[in-house]
Amino acid sequence: MNAPTLAPELSRKMDAYWRAANYLSVGQIYLFDNPLLRRPLMLSDVKPMLLGHWGTTPGQNFIYVHLNRVIRQYDLDMIYVCGPGHGGPAVVANTYLEGSYSEIYPHIGQDEAGLQKLFLQFSFPGGIPSHASPECPGSIHEGGELGYSLSHSFGAVFDNPSLVVACVVGDGEAETGPLATAWHSNKFLDPASDGAVLPILHLNGYKIANPSVLARITHEELEQLFLGYGWSPLFVEGSDPALMHEAMASALDSAIFQIKAIQHRARVDGDLARPRWPMIVLSSPKGWTGPKVVDGKTIEGTSRSHQVPISAPSAQPAHLKLLEDWLKSYRPEELFDERGRLNAELTELAPQGNRRMGANPHANGGALLHDLQLPDFREYAAPVPAPGTPGIGDTRVLGPFLRDVAKRNETPRNFRVFGPDETASNGLAALFDVTSRQWEAATLPNDEFLAHSGGVVDSMLSEHQCQGWLEGYLLTGRHGLFNCYEAFIHIVDSMFNQHAKWLKVSAQLPWRRPVASLNYLLASHVWRQDHNGFSHQDPGFIDHVTNKKSGVVRVYLPPDANCLLSVMDHCLRSRHYVNVVVAGKHPAPQWLDMDAAAEHCAAGIGIWSFASNDAGQEPDVVMACCGDVPTLETLAAVSILREHLPALKIRVVNVVDLMRLQPRSEHPHGLSDANFDALFTCDRPVIFAFHAYPSLIHKLTYRRTNHRNIHVRGYKEEGTTTTPFDMTVLNDMDRFHLAIDTINRLPKTGDEGLELKQRLEAKLIEHRLYINRNGQDMPEIRNWRWAHRP
Amino acid sequence: MNAPTLAPELSRKMDAYWRAANYLSVGQIYLFDNPLLRRPLMLSDVKPMLLGHWGTTPGQNFIYVHLNRVIRQYDLDMIYVCGPGHGGPAVVANTYLEGSYSEIYPHIGQDEAGLQKLFLQFSFPGGIPSHASPECPGSIHEGGELGYSLSHSFGAVFDNPSLVVACVVGDGEAETGPLATAWHSNKFLDPASDGAVLPILHLNGYKIANPSVLARITHEELEQLFLGYGWSPLFVEGSDPALMHEAMASALDSAIFQIKAIQHRARVDGDLARPRWPMIVLSSPKGWTGPKVVDGKTIEGTSRSHQVPISAPSAQPAHLKLLEDWLKSYRPEELFDERGRLNAELTELAPQGNRRMGANPHANGGALLHDLQLPDFREYAAPVPAPGTPGIGDTRVLGPFLRDVAKRNETPRNFRVFGPDETASNGLAALFDVTSRQWEAATLPNDEFLAHSGGVVDSMLSEHQCQGWLEGYLLTGRHGLFNCYEAFIHIVDSMFNQHAKWLKVSAQLPWRRPVASLNYLLASHVWRQDHNGFSHQDPGFIDHVTNKKSGVVRVYLPPDANCLLSVMDHCLRSRHYVNVVVAGKHPAPQWLDMDAAAEHCAAGIGIWSFASNDAGQEPDVVMACCGDVPTLETLAAVSILREHLPALKIRVVNVVDLMRLQPRSEHPHGLSDANFDALFTCDRPVIFAFHAYPSLIHKLTYRRTNHRNIHVRGYKEEGTTTTPFDMTVLNDMDRFHLAIDTINRLPKTGDEGLELKQRLEAKLIEHRLYINRNGQDMPEIRNWRWAHRP
Repeated sequence: MNAPTLAPELSRKMDAYWRAANYLSVGQIYLFDNPLLRRPLMLSDVKPMLLGHWGTTPGQNFIYVHLNRVIRQYDLDMIYVCGPGHGGPAVVANTYLEGSYSEIYPHIGQDEAGLQKLFLQFSFPGGIPSHASPECPGSIHEGGELGYSLSHSFGAVFDNPSLVVACVVGDGEAETGPLATAWHSNKFLDPASDGAVLPILHLNGYKIANPSVLARITHEELEQLFLGYGWSPLFVEGSDPALMHEAMASALDSAIFQIKAIQHRARVDGDLARPRWPMIVLSSPKGWTGPKVVDGKTIEGTSRSHQVPISAPSAQPAHLKLLEDWLKSYRPEELFDERGRLNAELTELAPQGNRRMGANPHANGGALLHDLQLPDFREYAAPVPAPGTPGIGDTRVLGPFLRDVAKRNETPRNFRVFGPDETASNGLAALFDVTSRQWEAATLPNDEFLAHSGGVVDSMLSEHQCQGWLEGYLLTGRHGLFNCYEAFIHIVDSMFNQHAKWLKVSAQLPWRRPVASLNYLLASHVWRQDHNGFSHQDPGFIDHVTNKKSGVVRVYLPPDANCLLSVMDHCLRSRHYVNVVVAGKHPAPQWLDMDAAAEHCAAGIGIWSFASNDAGQEPDVVMACCGDVPTLETLAAVSILREHLPALKIRVVNVVDLMRLQPRSEHPHGLSDANFDALFTCDRPVIFAFHAYPSLIHKLTYRRTNHRNIHVRGYKEEGTTTTPFDMTVLNDMDRFHLAIDTINRLPKTGDEGLELKQRLEAKLIEHRLYINRNGQDMPEIRNWRWAHRP
Repeated sequence: MNAPTLAPELSRKMDAYWRAANYLSVGQIYLFDNPLLRRPLMLSDVKPMLLGHWGTTPGQNFIYVHLNRVIRQYDLDMIYVCGPGHGGPAVVANTYLEGSYSEIYPHIGQDEAGLQKLFLQFSFPGGIPSHASPECPGSIHEGGELGYSLSHSFGAVFDNPSLVVACVVGDGEAETGPLATAWHSNKFLDPASDGAVLPILHLNGYKIANPSVLARITHEELEQLFLGYGWSPLFVEGSDPALMHEAMASALDSAIFQIKAIQHRARVDGDLARPRWPMIVLSSPKGWTGPKVVDGKTIEGTSRSHQVPISAPSAQPAHLKLLEDWLKSYRPEELFDERGRLNAELTELAPQGNRRMGANPHANGGALLHDLQLPDFREYAAPVPAPGTPGIGDTRVLGPFLRDVAKRNETPRNFRVFGPDETASNGLAALFDVTSRQWEAATLPNDEFLAHSGGVVDSMLSEHQCQGWLEGYLLTGRHGLFNCYEAFIHIVDSMFNQHAKWLKVSAQLPWRRPVASLNYLLASHVWRQDHNGFSHQDPGFIDHVTNKKSGVVRVYLPPDANCLLSVMDHCLRSRHYVNVVVAGKHPAPQWLDMDAAAEHCAAGIGIWSFASNDAGQEPDVVMACCGDVPTLETLAAVSILREHLPALKIRVVNVVDLMRLQPRSEHPHGLSDANFDALFTCDRPVIFAFHAYPSLIHKLTYRRTNHRNIHVRGYKEEGTTTTPFDMTVLNDMDRFHLAIDTINRLPKTGDEGLELKQRLEAKLIEHRLYINRNGQDMPEIRNWRWAHRP
C-alpha cells in the first residue's frame, strides 16, 4: 500500500478549511445577522428572502481547498474558472478566506462585522449576484449562462505558458453544445508556448430538476467519452470526506505531475506530439454536507438541494432549528477566532500574495495589458487616384496590415486572430505569410499553414469556440480579432450578450482594469453570398448589438478598403468595447485615398463632396449610404441622376460609424442635433441605402428633426442564389430603385424625371431577363465606372 | 471467408447508379448546355459563373445509392438528412434519378431537355440554392448553417416508430457545439415508441480550408469517442469503389439488423434498457472520383476539392478538356438512353412510390399533419371577480391546459413539450400529472417524472437540442412547444433564423403543405430574475424575431393568465408561423375574466375601460402597456394618478399582439392608421410601458401619426440581483416614474401635479433606502391592490 498523499494533520486542516468555506456559503445564502452563531439563531437573523444555490457549492469549496494545496506545494500560477454558474457562494467564500476579497473590498473585513456584511450582500438588493460575477475577485467567467467555461479557460492559457487554469465544468453545463465541443480544444493547445487547462468535471448528478446525462451513463462510457475526446481522465468518486480528501489530493498530484511532464517533454525535449492532458472527474453528492432530509424528503444527493435546501423559517418555524443545526455541523467555533477571523493554522493553507486565485493578475487582465505595436495603417493604403478605382476586395487590403500586426507582436505574443475555418475565405490569407494556424492534431502533406504554434486559430468549425477562446484571451490581458461570416455570427448572439454585460459591470469596478476590445470582422456579408444564398443572408447582428449599453458597443461599416484600414487601426487601439466591423471581401470600387479615408473615419460620417453637386447650398435631396454595397449603389444612382437630371442638387452623405446617427443623449458617438441637421437638412428627402435591415436606421434616427423624410432601403429578407446586383434588386436597393425613389420624392423633376423613371423601370425588367438567361449581371452593371470628377 | 453482401451484378449496377449521380452532380455545377455530351464540350456549354460544392457530393451520392438498396431490401420507411450543407447537388441528382424530382417539377423531365434544365437551374439566378433547401424533395433540413442535422433527425423520429432517418453528418459540422452534444440524443430515444436514427459520419477529411478534427485523431480515439457517446460505430474506410461498395453494403446490413433487433427487443420482448444504436463512420476522399491533380495541385482528397475543382475554362482554356475528361470518366453513354433517361436496369435500383426518399411524406410533414384535439381553454380560466385579483402565476394557470392537451393527444402522439430542464421551473409541472419526461439513461429512486416514453423532453440542458428536436418534430407533421428562460432563447437566435427562412421559402412552394407553428413560451423573463440577476436579463429575442418576414412571425405578450390561455390556444391552432409568447410564472394580479380576455386577445390590442376614465372622449393622456409587469406598473400608476389628480382623463391601452402596432403595410396583423389613431389619438401624450427594449416600440410605430408623442419606458439594460419592483425602478418603468412621466408631459396638472410629482420622487428615494435595509419591497408595493371599480 502506498503512503497517503496527505499527512493526517494536513488532511484534518484541509477538512477544517473546507468546513469554513461551507459555513460561509450557507451563511451567505441564509444569514442576515448573527454570523458566528454567538447567540441562538433567531428568525430575525435569517434573510427575509432566501435566494441562492447550495447544490454545487460544497463540491466547489472542496475543489478550491485542494487547489490551494497544490498551488502552494508546486508554486503554481493558477486561476479558477467556475463553470457551474451557481457557485457564487463558493468563490466568494474562498476569496474571503484567502484574504483577497477584503483587500479589494476593505469594508468587508476579516472580522465578525465583515462576515455579517459578506453574508448580507449575497443575492441581496444592492449586493452581489449569485454567480462568479465580475464583482468576484479572481473570476474571468460569470457562469450565469452555461457552456463557455472550457473555451474561456483555453483562451486564457493561449500564449500564457506559465498559467494553469483549473476549470470546473458542471454536469449540467457539460450537456450544452458549446461545452460538448470545447473538449476538443486540446487539439489546439501547444504544450510548449501555451499554458495548461485542468478540467474538473464536477458530476453532482443533477441539474435544476433532472438528473444529468453524464452522471447516468456507465462509468465505462464516461471513460471512453473522455478518452475519445483525447483526455486522460482521473476519477475521484465518493462522499466520505476523509476518503475523498485523500483521493482528490492524489488525483491532483497526478494531474500536476502529468502536466509538468508534458510541458517538460515539449519545452525541454522538443517533443511536440499532441499529448493526452489529464483531467479530473469528481463525482460527489449534490448539496454535499447539507441537510439529508427535510420535511420527509431526501435533499442531499438529489436535485432538491439545487437552490435553498431548507425553505424559509418564517413560513415553517421548525426550519429554524434545522438551519441552526446545519450551520453548527461545521463547528464554526473551531474555525474562527473570537474576532471572527479564520484561525491562523487554517489561514496558512492558502497561497500567498498573487498566488492566491482571487489575486492572480491573469484574472484582472487589464492590469497585464500592453498596447499592441501597430504599424502605420496608412502604409497599407490601396491607391485611389480617383473615386471609383477598382479594388481587389477590402479585407484583402486589410490582410497585409493584420499580417504585420501579427509580425510586430510576435515577441510579446499577445495578438491572435480567431475564426471558424474562414480566415482565408474572408480575405485574410496574408496572415499566413508570417504566422500559422495553431494545430496539434495529425498533419498530412497537402495541409496548408498548420503549425504547433501560430497566431491564427481557425481550424475548428465552431463560432462558439472562437468567441469563447477570444473572450478568455482578452480577459487575461491580450488582443484579438474574430473574423466570421456575417450571417453566422448570430450563433454567438448570447455569448456576445454575456460579454457585453461583463464589460458593462466591470467598467463600474475601479479595481478591474479595462481590457482590449472584442473586435468582430464580419466579412462574407449579406450582399455577397452569390453561391450560398438565402441561408447565408442575415445582417441582423448589429441590431442585436445596439440593444446593449452604448458605453460598450461600437459599429462600423467602412465603405472601402482605406476606410477599413483606418477603422481597424482604431478598433485595435480601443479598450473595453465590442467593435463590430462589417466589410466586403470581393473586388469592389474604392472611393477615398488614404488621407481622405482617415479624415472621413475620424469624423465617422460626412458629405462626400466629390459625389455631391450641392456646392455647400441646401440640396434637393440627400442620398445617404452606409456599407460598401449600399455606397456603390448610391453612387451609381447619383451617376444616373446627375447625367440625366443635371439640375438636381444632390448631397451624398456616407456613414462609417453607425452610432453617429443616434442622439448624443443615447450614445457617446451620437451627433448633436445641429450637426445632424446640417448633414441631413431639416426638410429635404433623404434616400438612405443601408447595409442591414432598414428599421435599424429608423430606430437610431426617430428623434431627429428630418426623420419623417428619411426613406431607407436595405435588406428586407429577400434573397437566393443569385448575382450581387440582383440581390440589391430583390431588396429594392439597387441604383435604379434608388434613382426612382429620388424622383418619386421630387415632383419638381417634372417630365424629365418621369421619363427617366420609366427608362429605369424598363432597365429593371431588362436586368431580370438578362440574368435569367445568362446567369450574370448585365454588362453595364459589371463594367460600371464612377464618371464624375470633382 | 464470408460470402459478399453484394452480388457482383448488383455491385456493378450500384456503381453505375453512383456514376450517374456523380455525373449529374458535376453537370449541375458546370453545364449550361450539352447535358449528355452528345457533342464535344465547348466553352459555351459551360456556365459563365461556376458556383457550387463538389467536395462532399460524391460521398453523399455513394451513401444515397446504398440507402436505396436497403430501403428496397428491407422495405424501410426512411428519409435522408443531408448535414453537410453543400450536398445540394447530391440530393437533387438522386431525387431526379429516382423520379420524385420530376413528379414535383414536371418541367424538369426525365429526358435530355429536362437534364439541361436540371443543370442550368443549380446555383443560378432564378434557380435553386446549393443546399438541401426547401425546394428539394425529401428534405427537412437546409444544411446551409451547420450543426443541426442530428437533432432534426431525432425530432423527426420521436413518436414515429416506423421511421428511420439516415442522417449524414459532415466532419466539419461535427465540430460545432450543437452537433457535438446532439450525439447524446440517444439517451432520449425510446426504442419502442420512437423510430431510429442512423447517423453516418462522413469523414472526408477537410472543411473549407482546414483539415477536420475528427479525421485527424487516431482511429482508437474516434472509436472511443463514439462508444463514449453510447453508439456502436461501424467503420467503412477507403477509396477503391469496388471494395467500398462491399464494405458499405455490409455495414448497412449490419446497422439495419441491429436497429431491427433493438426494436424487436423493446417492442416484442419489452426490454427497454437503453440500447447501443449503430452508426456508420464513412471515411472517403473529399472530392472522390473528381480530378486528381489540376494545375499541378492535388485536388481529390484535399480541401481544394471543396468547391469547384476545375476553375472556369473561360479563364483557362486547358480546363475545358479536363472538365470534359472528368465528365466522360463516368461514361454517361452507358448510363442514359438516347432520350436522356436513366437506363431501365438502373432505374429499378431505386425504391418505388413513397418509399423513395424524395417522396416520403414524412419529409413534407404538413401533408401528415392532423389538428390537435384541444380542450376548451375557457375551462381553465383563473377566476377574476374584479381587476387586480391575485393570481398564482400565469404559466401555472396555463399548465393544466397544456396537461390536457398532452392527455387528449396521447393516442395520435403528436404533441410534445421541449425545454432545457426548465419545464417545472417555468410553471408547467401540471404536465407531469399525465405524462413524463422521456429519458432512457439510468434512473435512481429519488428521480421525478422520468419514463422511457413521455410527452415532455426537458432532461437535457441544451437550448440547441430543444430547438432542433422541435423543428424536426414539426417538419414531420406534429405539434409542439418550446418553453425556455427568456434570456437564453438567444442561444438559438441563429436556429430561429434558419427555421424562419425555411418557413418563408416553403410557403411559396405549393407542393409543401403548411406545418404546425413553432411556439415559444418564454417564461422566467427579464423582470423576474430575482435570484439570477443581470446575466439572466435580456428581452431582445423579440427584436431579433421581428427582423424576419412578417408572413412568418407573431409575438404575443399576454398581460395575465386568461389572456395567456387564449393566446396559447390560438398559437396551437395556427400553421406555419413562429409564435413567441412571453409570460410570467410568479404570482401576479389578474385583470380580465375569461370572456373579456378572449375578446381582448382576439382584438390583440384595446382600451381597458375598467381602468380608463376618458369615457369615450379624447383623453388627456394614453397610458399604454405591453407585458405583464408593465401592465401592473401602468395600472398602479393610473391608480395613483386617478386618486390624486381625479380631473385627469386617462385612457389605458393594453397590447397583447405586438404586431398590431406595425403599419398594415408591414405586417398582416397591423392596425390601419385610422384604428391606431383611434386608440392612441393624434396628438395626446402616450406613456408606453413595454416589456422589452423601448426602441422596438419606436421601430414598430415610427410611421404612426402620433409617434412623436409616444414616450416609451422599458428595459434599458439595467439590473442586478434585486426585487421585482426595484428592477422596474432601475429601468425607470415603475409606477412612480410612469406617473411622473405623465405629469411631466401634462403642464395642465399645475400645482397639484407638481406636488404629486415631488411626493413620488420622495417615494423613490424611500424605496431605495427600504430595500437596501430590508431586502424586500416596501409593504405598499407588496400589498398593492387595484382600487378602481368600473
